[in-house]
Amino acid sequence: MDINKEILNLDWDREPYGLYEPIEYTLAAGGKRVRPQLAMIASQLFGGKDEEVLPAALALEVFHNFTLLHDDVMDKADVRRGRPTVHVKWNENTAILSGDQMLIEAYKLLSGVPADKLPRVLQLFNQMATEICEGQQYDVDFESQEHVTIDEYLKMIRLKTSVLLANALQTGAYIAGADEQAQEALYQFGINIGLAFQIQDDILDVWSDPKTFGKAVGGDISCNKKTFVYLEAKKRGGEEAKRLEEWYSQVLEDNTEKIAVVKEIFEQLGVRDVCEQVVEDYTRKAMRILDTLPQNTATEQLRQLANKLNTRKD
Amino acid sequence: MDINKEILNLDWDREPYGLYEPIEYTLAAGGKRVRPQLAMIASQLFGGKDEEVLPAALALEVFHNFTLLHDDVMDKADVRRGRPTVHVKWNENTAILSGDQMLIEAYKLLSGVPADKLPRVLQLFNQMATEICEGQQYDVDFESQEHVTIDEYLKMIRLKTSVLLANALQTGAYIAGADEQAQEALYQFGINIGLAFQIQDDILDVWSDPKTFGKAVGGDISCNKKTFVYLEAKKRGGEEAKRLEEWYSQVLEDNTEKIAVVKEIFEQLGVRDVCEQVVEDYTRKAMRILDTLPQNTATEQLRQLANKLNTRKD
Repeated sequence: MDINKEILNLDWDREPYGLYEPIEYTLAAGGKRVRPQLAMIASQLFGGKDEEVLPAALALEVFHNFTLLHDDVMDKADVRRGRPTVHVKWNENTAILSGDQMLIEAYKLLSGVPADKLPRVLQLFNQMATEICEGQQYDVDFESQEHVTIDEYLKMIRLKTSVLLANALQTGAYIAGADEQAQEALYQFGINIGLAFQIQDDILDVWSDPKTFGKAVGGDISCNKKTFVYLEAKKRGGEEAKRLEEWYSQVLEDNTEKIAVVKEIFEQLGVRDVCEQVVEDYTRKAMRILDTLPQNTATEQLRQLANKLNTRKD
Repeated sequence: MDINKEILNLDWDREPYGLYEPIEYTLAAGGKRVRPQLAMIASQLFGGKDEEVLPAALALEVFHNFTLLHDDVMDKADVRRGRPTVHVKWNENTAILSGDQMLIEAYKLLSGVPADKLPRVLQLFNQMATEICEGQQYDVDFESQEHVTIDEYLKMIRLKTSVLLANALQTGAYIAGADEQAQEALYQFGINIGLAFQIQDDILDVWSDPKTFGKAVGGDISCNKKTFVYLEAKKRGGEEAKRLEEWYSQVLEDNTEKIAVVKEIFEQLGVRDVCEQVVEDYTRKAMRILDTLPQNTATEQLRQLANKLNTRKD
C-alpha cells in the first residue's frame, strides 16, 4: 500500500474552500510520512490487515500536519518544506481555523478503525495528543526559563516528538492484535528513535552542510534555542559556558558572527562527540527492543527506518 | 445533577500550568451552560441515566468554550463575559495552544460515554464540529463578500450556532436509547431554537437597553456585520438601502453617529417587526416539534428554555 498516495487521495474539494484549501495545501507539501508508515509496518509485523490500520495511519499524518500548521503560526515561521506557510500564503486566522479543522479531520479518520478497537485507539490518541500540546508548552516555557536541565529537555522532546512516533507504532500493533507486551515494546522503540531523531536534529542545526541541509544552518543558534547541544555545552561550565550564555542573551539582525563563534565554542568543548554518542545510544537501545519482537520483513523495515532517520544529513 | 458544578469540578491543576490555567480560566467564566443542559434534559426525556450522558454534556461545554477561545483570537475580541480574553490576559500563542488542548479535552471527555454508544456519539460530534468550523469560515467569508443572501446567512448561523444545540439534544437522546425519529425531532428542535436565538441576538444588538445588555449596543453595526437585521433592511432596496451600504463601507473611530443613523434607517424600513416575527416563527416551529415527543417534566423544561432564550433581553 502506497501511504503517500493514500494521503494525497484524501478529498478536500469541499465548500467553504477557504477552510479546506489550506488543508489540501498543507498535506500536499510532502514530508517523509514517517508516522503513517510506522503504523502500517507495526501492523504488518503482527500480520494485521492494511485496510484496518489505514484510517489510524492517515489520522496520524493529518494530526502531525495540524501540529506543524499551528506551531508555524506560534513560531512565526514563514517557510515549511520549501513553501510559504499557511499564515503567510493566506493569513493567521485561516491558519488557526483550518488547523482546528485538521484536528477534527484527524478524529474523523480515526473513527474509521474497526469499531471494537475504537475506544482503546481513541484513548491512546487522546493521551498522545495531550502530551504533544504539553511538550509544545514546555518548549515555549523553556524560551523564558533561565535554567533548563538535560532531563527537562529530554522530557520535553519525548512529549513533543517521541510520543507521536510511539503512538503510531503501538496503535498499528494494537489494531493488528499484538499483545500488550509487544505493544509496549514498540512504543518504547518509538520513544527511543524519537529522542535520537530530535537530538540528531539539534546536531544538524550546527554541523550540517549548507548545500544539502533543508533549512538555514544555525537557525537554533540565531533564535537562542536551548537545544541538546547547547545544554551539553553549558553543563561544562567555566568561561566558555559564560560566553555562550552571553551570546544567547542577544537577538541580532545579522547572525553570521554569532553562529560562527557559538559553533567554535561547541567544538572547543567537544560536545559534538558527546551528542553523537547519545544519538547512537538511543538508536542502539531502540534496536535492542526490536530484537525482542517477531523477526520478519516488517522488523527489518523498522531497523532500516531507524537507521535512516538517525544517520540523515538533512 | 448540577451541571455547572460538574463543569467547575473538572480538574485542571496539572503541569504545564501555562497550558491548563487558561482552560480553567475560560471554563470558570460561567455562561448559561445551555448545551450541556440540553444534553441532560434530552436524556431525561427518554429516561436516560444522568451519569451516562454526563461525559458528552461536559464535552460539549468544553468544545463550545474552545470555539469561543479561538473565535476571540480571530475576532481580536478583548472581553468575554466581563473578563479579559485569554489572548489579552496571556498572549495569542497561549490562546491557540490552550484552545487546541481544549478541543482534545472535549474528545477525552466524550470518550467516557458507554463504549457501545461511542462510535455513533463520536460520529455525530465530528460532524457537528466540522459544521461549526464551516460556519465560522462562512462568517469570515461574508465580511468581504459584497452580496450575502438571507438564505446564505441562515445557512451560516445554522452551522455556526444551531448544530451545536441540535447535537447536544440528539446525543443526549441517543445515549438514553431514544429511537431515530425522536432523535431527529430533537435535532430539529435544536436547529430552530438556534436560529431564533441568533436572530434574537442580532435584534438585541440594535434594540436593547444599554443598562441591561451585556455588551456595547450597536457592536455589530460598528464593525459592519451583515446581520439578519441588516440583510432584511438591505433586501428592501431603494434609497435607504443605499445609505445603509454607504455607512457599512466605513470603519470609524467614533461610531455614535453611525449607530444612531443606521438604527433610524432600520426603524424607517420597519425591519424590527419582521425580524421579531421570524424569531417567533422559529420558536413556534420548535414548540410544535416538542408536541410530537413524550410529555413529561423534561419536555416542559425544554419549552421553558426555548422561551427564555428567545425572549431574553441580554
